[in-house]
Amino acid sequence: MDTNLILQNIAKHIQLTPEEQAHFTSMLAQKSVKRKEMLLQEGEVCRYSTFVTQGCLRSYSLDHNGFEHVMAFAPPDWWIADMYSFISQKPGMLFIEALEPTEVLLLSKENQERLYVDIPKFERFFRILIEKSLVSNQQRLLDGLSLPAQERFRHFCQRYPSLVNCLPKKQIASYIGVTPEFFSKMMKEVNRLRSK
Amino acid sequence: MDTNLILQNIAKHIQLTPEEQAHFTSMLAQKSVKRKEMLLQEGEVCRYSTFVTQGCLRSYSLDHNGFEHVMAFAPPDWWIADMYSFISQKPGMLFIEALEPTEVLLLSKENQERLYVDIPKFERFFRILIEKSLVSNQQRLLDGLSLPAQERFRHFCQRYPSLVNCLPKKQIASYIGVTPEFFSKMMKEVNRLRSK
Repeated sequence: MDTNLILQNIAKHIQLTPEEQAHFTSMLAQKSVKRKEMLLQEGEVCRYSTFVTQGCLRSYSLDHNGFEHVMAFAPPDWWIADMYSFISQKPGMLFIEALEPTEVLLLSKENQERLYVDIPKFERFFRILIEKSLVSNQQRLLDGLSLPAQERFRHFCQRYPSLVNCLPKKQIASYIGVTPEFFSKMMKEVNRLRSK
Repeated sequence: MDTNLILQNIAKHIQLTPEEQAHFTSMLAQKSVKRKEMLLQEGEVCRYSTFVTQGCLRSYSLDHNGFEHVMAFAPPDWWIADMYSFISQKPGMLFIEALEPTEVLLLSKENQERLYVDIPKFERFFRILIEKSLVSNQQRLLDGLSLPAQERFRHFCQRYPSLVNCLPKKQIASYIGVTPEFFSKMMKEVNRLRSK
């Protein structure tokens, strides 16, 4: 199991001893996810915090008309979960799907709770992770209410610089809340202005 | 300063020594808020986690048509903040107002950050508080999308049992997302069914 990336990710917020690193990584499970495979479906309870080491996941919800709304992408070095379901252990509303062949490390709810007891520093790590999630969800909600689509696209580029040139256009369109057709028109306009 | 209630509130999740209790309470500021006085306005940065010891606060947002949407109530023993603004220290979208003469204890952002360093157990306390906030916000969003108004009212009663009989009807109506007129009709129907 390659745990370099996840240990670097954690070192952004807390410092672990080699023993603590070993204890933490012993709690992880590795999983390979095929393109279009679902890690979680609406109505299921989310049992894992998922960390991406290769590939890309996305979370989305389906509205009453069967229209997809992308909530988040998770390229390598990102965590993803249906936070509501993971915390409450109630059925969630999100799907989590692989956009390409993806490698993940899974931390189960039980192991995460044990981690808080065994290595209390992880309280800080996940407190900060939850805060970031809450802030970015709220920011997206505000963006959707108040910003034009071009600005929402700019925020997407800031948040996911590695994805701008490799994600299918329809996924980016869904994330910023426009149709693929409108997105194509908008990109032509953006490129026209850039080339002037 | 009466700190009994806030120390009991904290003891629900973490155990403090008498010295830690004293250090924590030394970081609090006390404030009296008049009825209809604003603790926070839209566009301001939320600088405090606010704990209510007497009275009642509410948080709400204003939409483009000037219509109020109640986000949360905070009777005694509740914490309230514009979490997005408090965490990000960016301008928020919420108003926080006193519904009656209210006494609060304020923990500033700076003191809360210092608390994480001085007494790391508070990482756990606020991690749990943020999780509860995230879950209940998400639950309200789901309720609004999927439940009829009577069920949303039932959830309000479960969440705030002490407020059912003392809040103005229009505040409860705003929380569950109906007009005061619709709320009155609905309550007549609820009471008619109950008395059968």
